[in-house]
Amino acid sequence: MNILDIIEKKRDKKELSKEEIEYFIKGYTNNDIADYQAAALVMAIFLNGMTKQETTELTLAMAHSGEILDLSKLNEIIVDKHSTGGVGDKVSLILLPLVASLGVPVAKMSGRGLGFTGGTVDKLESIPGYRTDIDMNTFVENVEKIGISMISQTLNLAPADKKIYALRDSISCVESIPLIASSIMSKKIASGAEKIVLDVTVGNGAFMKDVESATNLANEMIEIGKLAKRETICILTNMDEPLGYSVGNNLEVIEAIKFLNGNMPEDLKDVVLELGAYMIKLAGLGDNIEDNKKKMLENINNGKAFNKFLELIKNQGGDTSYIENVEKFDKVKYILPIYATDNGYISQINAKEVGKLACDLGAGRIKKDDKINYSVGIILNKKVSNKVIKDEILGYVHANDEEKAKSTAQKLKEIIKIDQEEPKKLETIIKVIQ
Amino acid sequence: MNILDIIEKKRDKKELSKEEIEYFIKGYTNNDIADYQAAALVMAIFLNGMTKQETTELTLAMAHSGEILDLSKLNEIIVDKHSTGGVGDKVSLILLPLVASLGVPVAKMSGRGLGFTGGTVDKLESIPGYRTDIDMNTFVENVEKIGISMISQTLNLAPADKKIYALRDSISCVESIPLIASSIMSKKIASGAEKIVLDVTVGNGAFMKDVESATNLANEMIEIGKLAKRETICILTNMDEPLGYSVGNNLEVIEAIKFLNGNMPEDLKDVVLELGAYMIKLAGLGDNIEDNKKKMLENINNGKAFNKFLELIKNQGGDTSYIENVEKFDKVKYILPIYATDNGYISQINAKEVGKLACDLGAGRIKKDDKINYSVGIILNKKVSNKVIKDEILGYVHANDEEKAKSTAQKLKEIIKIDQEEPKKLETIIKVIQ
Repeated sequence: MNILDIIEKKRDKKELSKEEIEYFIKGYTNNDIADYQAAALVMAIFLNGMTKQETTELTLAMAHSGEILDLSKLNEIIVDKHSTGGVGDKVSLILLPLVASLGVPVAKMSGRGLGFTGGTVDKLESIPGYRTDIDMNTFVENVEKIGISMISQTLNLAPADKKIYALRDSISCVESIPLIASSIMSKKIASGAEKIVLDVTVGNGAFMKDVESATNLANEMIEIGKLAKRETICILTNMDEPLGYSVGNNLEVIEAIKFLNGNMPEDLKDVVLELGAYMIKLAGLGDNIEDNKKKMLENINNGKAFNKFLELIKNQGGDTSYIENVEKFDKVKYILPIYATDNGYISQINAKEVGKLACDLGAGRIKKDDKINYSVGIILNKKVSNKVIKDEILGYVHANDEEKAKSTAQKLKEIIKIDQEEPKKLETIIKVIQ
Repeated sequence: MNILDIIEKKRDKKELSKEEIEYFIKGYTNNDIADYQAAALVMAIFLNGMTKQETTELTLAMAHSGEILDLSKLNEIIVDKHSTGGVGDKVSLILLPLVASLGVPVAKMSGRGLGFTGGTVDKLESIPGYRTDIDMNTFVENVEKIGISMISQTLNLAPADKKIYALRDSISCVESIPLIASSIMSKKIASGAEKIVLDVTVGNGAFMKDVESATNLANEMIEIGKLAKRETICILTNMDEPLGYSVGNNLEVIEAIKFLNGNMPEDLKDVVLELGAYMIKLAGLGDNIEDNKKKMLENINNGKAFNKFLELIKNQGGDTSYIENVEKFDKVKYILPIYATDNGYISQINAKEVGKLACDLGAGRIKKDDKINYSVGIILNKKVSNKVIKDEILGYVHANDEEKAKSTAQKLKEIIKIDQEEPKKLETIIKVIQ
């Protein structure tokens, strides 16, 4: 077997075998196969596609290219949750303690944010004392002890995926369904998931810009899940405007805490309940989706979900006084309000643009090693379709630099569009594919 | 402008502009663009093709990526001749002195052999004393003085083409019409050609395996020639069996000398006369192809062509006593005859296989820096369609190693196929495209 024949085969639209895909992944991970050869193969895959079987073999080969998190010791069905990324997405912070409070074991490794999308690990680390870098034994023990642990990717998970992802980025080969699907699924499989609920975001703030391509991606991942024996459910959710009202690390933690205390923005509630209901189902703790949602609301109302969150934070070294009194979080120096320039309805709040503004304020990273400012961000007062009157406050910019605060406020004002016609309300849950 | 957008454009089947192609070639030559980015673009070109305009811009950009041979001092129309490669192809050794003897100025830079195809430079260097590495001034002076000079590529011609060619080889992107056409034409333009006669070989011993793909390549090169203002004529010739009877450096020089002395194998004669007649035409020295052929035969019969060859060899330091007495060339230690195993007709002598055998004997290179053995090779006694009787000698293996001689003889015997039916004689000149 040699890489030239493998490239030629894919170039000529033929199906690669399991052995050929494994040969490529192993060789590329070991640096035996050069970047330019991988680049040629990736472009051929981009243009000629892959069968479901090929995509599954690629996923499994990438999943096995590094360490694999072994959760068999837990002796329970491990359901993982993953989102394809968004702006203001604090779902994991709320959803995971919530389902844990209902008995779903949660052993979650999350990522950091890059570009305009945030990362759960950054949000958790914005809670003073919280440690995301604990060792694997303690991680598993935490899940055994309190039913939940949330950490960063400390293991060398799917290094082949990391290499191929970076390569794709540098050769204009990002937007390929088999490559995106195998990238996501390989990381889930490497991190020990047996069943997977995927939040496939759709819209300007998401990877997938329209329902059709999101559906294709979802179907591809479900198919991989089937062939790889990891039952997978995809929920397509809207990401045209930010989820909830807050964008920025501390700000989103505070919104999550409020949610767990019963103050639930509607779109965020829809996403949390939908994903959670399917996680409970996959964990074998209830087949009726509506019943599952009721149980979740119950555990919010009776405080069990919030208590599980407190328990998680405490167990990983976090200072729970911040959780019990969110006023303790660092305040920014400048909070600038944005006023409506006209009467009408909010017609658009471009999620990607809001994400970029927050990132520019320091809430996110442009490059991998950038430092994050946990306090800065944006708080919106309105959602698309809300009525507004002139001079009403539409939101706030939270910044530590006066100039930046002003210029961001100006830009944010332009991003929040007001129209005279009442727009159609955005459907948060687009569809469930299983 | 940036390489990511250029890759994306070609990936999406859009036409690249002159500026984009120049940006890529310049950046890749300077190492500003990485190999993996070039690899992705080359694969996208391979799969999505290029328009004639794009291929021409690529050709010109590659031609201008390094030094350009300036032959304007000669004040004559410079007609270049090039072959897409073959086995036993000693055409340049015969044809160029021949047309020079008729007043066509010859300023020829040739390549070395690689793989199963030989190179003119190796054949010239197999003549003791002959120098192929002379400086540009002497080269041009030689053409002024005696009307012909034949050297190796001493200038840094089309370095972008060299890089892209090596890359294509390592990413399974060799067989692409626009990439092959631009590679050939860029080198011709960089080496100062104003008009070009191309011998496009077709068959198992050639780059192009069938008449259709050879015709496509020819049309592409003619179109580039038109757009780049270098009139180009393509002659498709058969390369299913070796050209003439000899394969190997000294052996081919000897066959060329014999040809110039009137001993002309039919297929070799057809190719030399056809290419030469069009070179004379392009040089403006005669529009009638048949008349041109007659003039060429005349200069063989009256010795002028042979004398021009002698003059060339002498002028570049070669020992002409070898040319006047070919018995002086080094002899190999072992000459093994091959006998016919049956009565019948020769039905096939696979050119590629014969080329590989000669290469294995040491006549060619596997890697760029391999040393060549000038004396070894293969001499055939028969051509396809010739009648043979059992135990008749079909050819000889010339080798310096007894074991290799024996094993090669055995393999050669298997390559020369004998059939009971009289096969159709192979047409040497397939067609002329202009």
